[in-house]
Amino acid sequence: MDLQKLIRDIPDFPKKGIIFKDITTLLKNPAGLNDAAEQILALVKDLGITKVAGIESRGFILGGLLAARLQAGFIPIRKPKKLPAPVYSESYDLEYGTDTIEMHKDAITAGDIVLLHDDLLATGGTAKAACNIIEKAGGKIVHISFIIELAFLHGKDKLQGYEISSLIKYDGE
Amino acid sequence: MDLQKLIRDIPDFPKKGIIFKDITTLLKNPAGLNDAAEQILALVKDLGITKVAGIESRGFILGGLLAARLQAGFIPIRKPKKLPAPVYSESYDLEYGTDTIEMHKDAITAGDIVLLHDDLLATGGTAKAACNIIEKAGGKIVHISFIIELAFLHGKDKLQGYEISSLIKYDGE
Repeated sequence: MDLQKLIRDIPDFPKKGIIFKDITTLLKNPAGLNDAAEQILALVKDLGITKVAGIESRGFILGGLLAARLQAGFIPIRKPKKLPAPVYSESYDLEYGTDTIEMHKDAITAGDIVLLHDDLLATGGTAKAACNIIEKAGGKIVHISFIIELAFLHGKDKLQGYEISSLIKYDGE
Repeated sequence: MDLQKLIRDIPDFPKKGIIFKDITTLLKNPAGLNDAAEQILALVKDLGITKVAGIESRGFILGGLLAARLQAGFIPIRKPKKLPAPVYSESYDLEYGTDTIEMHKDAITAGDIVLLHDDLLATGGTAKAACNIIEKAGGKIVHISFIIELAFLHGKDKLQGYEISSLIKYDGE
């Protein structure tokens, strides 16, 4: 199935000059949703994954589904102040300023085999911060899966050494 | 499976005097995650559901999973300014002030049979606003599923006429 046909381009969102790749048109299509999950599962099903970590918010949508299908646990990586128990925090640079993500300290334990999932690989800052947090907790990241990769932003450069997949890749702006 | 045993109490979160019911300890447990989904599916599998709407953020975690299992599409209902295409908005009262949720206008079409899902039924304001949006788009809500219901807040009073389920119910504070 050509999932790219289910992605909608939204010009000038969230700001002028950006063409936003909208995955909601894929998610609302039952065959598209199912095929996206199956394509990721085909890549990771034999890796012995024990936890799937999804990045808030869109990484939760397939994250929970992938965890259930892999008979793994689901771990939310969230924006600051959302998680109620003690957390590991990690900050990362944005174009202007910084952002922070958090994960419960007891979400992942030493020996956990982790799939990290998010909807979009752009500059890679969020994913790299998530890797740092997961490894601080003792998890081993065996795969990072994205729905969309904006290859022209070179996010993979920040994630060297990890096995990475994306279902849809855009090479130019 | 007694899912309530997998819920963690966090005193004084997000503010003093509140005992927060933390579902992350359920979600990270593979059997708990799977059983929660199966219990909801058992209730809704024969309702002809075509779309599952999940409320941001925690409603996305089981929402995507339920949609895939029902061979339905997944619809995110989000906080303001997050969705890139034209939206329906609905505001609702909080204890102090108001909040707003949004859904893409083309997410649901007339004739869609909808399962609405969120993690928590508290006062019911968010769920009621979500119902209003879904119905504005022409969807028919056949079930609203929650993981946890804080029955002492009487959220069901705002959702009269809907079929509602919760996996875990707390009768007292």
